[in-house]
Amino acid sequence: MELWFTEYQTPAIGFSCKSTSTLRTEKTAFQDLAVIETEQFGRMLLLDGMVMTTEKDEFIYHEMISLVACNSHPNPENVLIIGGGDGGTLREVVRHPAVKQGTLVEIDERVVQAARDFFPSISCALDHVKSKVLIEDGIKYVQENENCYDIVIVDSTDPVGPAIELFSKSFYANVYKLLRDDGMLVVQSDSPYYHPEVVRMAFNGIKDIFPLTKLYLANIPTYPSGLWSFTIGSKKHDPEQPCHTHQQGCRYYTNKLHEAAFQLPVLVKQIIGNGE
Amino acid sequence: MELWFTEYQTPAIGFSCKSTSTLRTEKTAFQDLAVIETEQFGRMLLLDGMVMTTEKDEFIYHEMISLVACNSHPNPENVLIIGGGDGGTLREVVRHPAVKQGTLVEIDERVVQAARDFFPSISCALDHVKSKVLIEDGIKYVQENENCYDIVIVDSTDPVGPAIELFSKSFYANVYKLLRDDGMLVVQSDSPYYHPEVVRMAFNGIKDIFPLTKLYLANIPTYPSGLWSFTIGSKKHDPEQPCHTHQQGCRYYTNKLHEAAFQLPVLVKQIIGNGE
Repeated sequence: MELWFTEYQTPAIGFSCKSTSTLRTEKTAFQDLAVIETEQFGRMLLLDGMVMTTEKDEFIYHEMISLVACNSHPNPENVLIIGGGDGGTLREVVRHPAVKQGTLVEIDERVVQAARDFFPSISCALDHVKSKVLIEDGIKYVQENENCYDIVIVDSTDPVGPAIELFSKSFYANVYKLLRDDGMLVVQSDSPYYHPEVVRMAFNGIKDIFPLTKLYLANIPTYPSGLWSFTIGSKKHDPEQPCHTHQQGCRYYTNKLHEAAFQLPVLVKQIIGNGE
Repeated sequence: MELWFTEYQTPAIGFSCKSTSTLRTEKTAFQDLAVIETEQFGRMLLLDGMVMTTEKDEFIYHEMISLVACNSHPNPENVLIIGGGDGGTLREVVRHPAVKQGTLVEIDERVVQAARDFFPSISCALDHVKSKVLIEDGIKYVQENENCYDIVIVDSTDPVGPAIELFSKSFYANVYKLLRDDGMLVVQSDSPYYHPEVVRMAFNGIKDIFPLTKLYLANIPTYPSGLWSFTIGSKKHDPEQPCHTHQQGCRYYTNKLHEAAFQLPVLVKQIIGNGE
C-alpha cells in the first residue's frame, strides 16, 4: 500500500508527498495538527492540512526569516518571535552572537509539544539559556508591552484560522510600539506566484506603519510554488545591508545571498507597486 | 468530474494540476507529447509526462535561459538554440537588440507544430526575420559546424530519453569548437533540491571544457521544487556581469536580478564543490 499526503496549495494545484507513517494526528484547541514521515523530506509537521516544516528543508525558512533582520540590525539584543512553536526560528535567533534573549510567544502549546516529541533538530533551542518560551496569544502580548524589542519576527501560518489577525494593520501598529526606536519587524508573507494578494496585504499594511519596508525572497521546495516572500519593516536601519558577518553553520544563508534576496523579479515588484 | 494531471517529480513527490481539457496527445518519433488546458497555468506542454512549459509561467524560464548570456556577451550576434522547439527561447533571443540571427535546431518537428497550434504567445517568433528553424539532430549539428556562434543555448529536456547525450562531455567539447573564441554555452541544469546529481554532472562536464563556469538560479513554479539551475560556460567574458542593459518588456529578468541569480545558497554551492 502506498500512502500519499496531498496539500491543495490552490484550488487547482496539489503537492503530494509519499508518506511512510503517521506519527501523530490531533485536534488542538486551535487547529488540526499532524506529524507524518515522508520519503522525500523526512518528518513533516502539518497544521490544518498545510505543510509547516519538514526535517530536510526547514533550515531554509528558519535561516531566512531570522538572519536577514539579525544581521542587518546593529544591536539585535532582544528578539521576539510570534508563533514559530516548532522552535526553528528561535534556534537561529539564539545562535546569533549579538542576540542576548529570544522570546517565543506561541498560542498553541501542542505545536511546541509536537516539536519536542518529533523534531529534536528543530526544537533543540527551546531550552537554550538565551531562550524564553511563553504559551500565550501573541496578539494580546504585543498589545500589553511597549518599547522593549529590537526585532519582532512573525512566524505564523497563512492568513486563515488563528493567524488572520497577525496580518492586520492594528497588529502591525502594536508591533511598532513594541519595538525600540531602531527596531525591525519581519513577517512571512506567502507566495508571490500563488497568493499575490497576501503579499500585497502584508507589504502595504507594514508600509503604512514603518518608514522603510522591503520584500525579500527564498526558495522553499515544500511551500506553495517553491518561492516564498518575507516582508521587513524597519524604523531606521536598511535591512538589505548586513552589518554582521554571522553566517557560520548556515546551510542556505550567506551575506551575499542576503543582499541578492532583495533583488525582485519584475512580476514580484509589480505586486508591491514597485514595478519598473 | 474533475481531471487532474500529476507529474511525479521524484518517486516520492507529485505535482498535480487541475485540467479542464486535453487538446492533443500523440506519440512522436521521439517522445510522448501532450497539450492540456490547466486552471492555474493555462495551456501546458508535456513531454514524456513532464511539464515543459505553460502559458502563465513560461516567461521566467525563457527570459532566464536567454538573457543572462545575451546581456553579458558584448556582441551576441549569432545565437544557436539546441532543442527549445516551443520557440520561447528563440523569442527572447531575437528580441535582443544585439542579436542578428537566432538559429533553432529541434529534433522533433511535432514539438514545433504543437507550439504553432496551441501556444501562439510562445511560438510567435518562429517566423521572425532574425529566426532560422531547422528540424535536425542537435548533436550532429554541433559535430558538423565550427567557430560560428557567439552563444549556444541548450534548451533540452532532462537527461532521460533523447536529451541524454546533451549532458555528455563530448557534446560540450563539440559546442566549444562551435563557438567563436569569446563564446558562451548555457544549459538548463535541473533542480538543485531534487536532482543535485544532474546539476553536478552538467557543471563538472562544462567546467572540464570551459575556462569560466558558473551556475545561476531562477524560480519556476511548474518545475520540480520551484528552483531551477542553469550552467554557463564561457571562453572569455564573465557571465555574471551584464554589459547590455536590455530588460525592456521583461516580466522576470532585470539587470540587478541577473547578478543576484549567481548568489547561491550554501547547499547549492556545496553541490558544485564550491562551498565555503
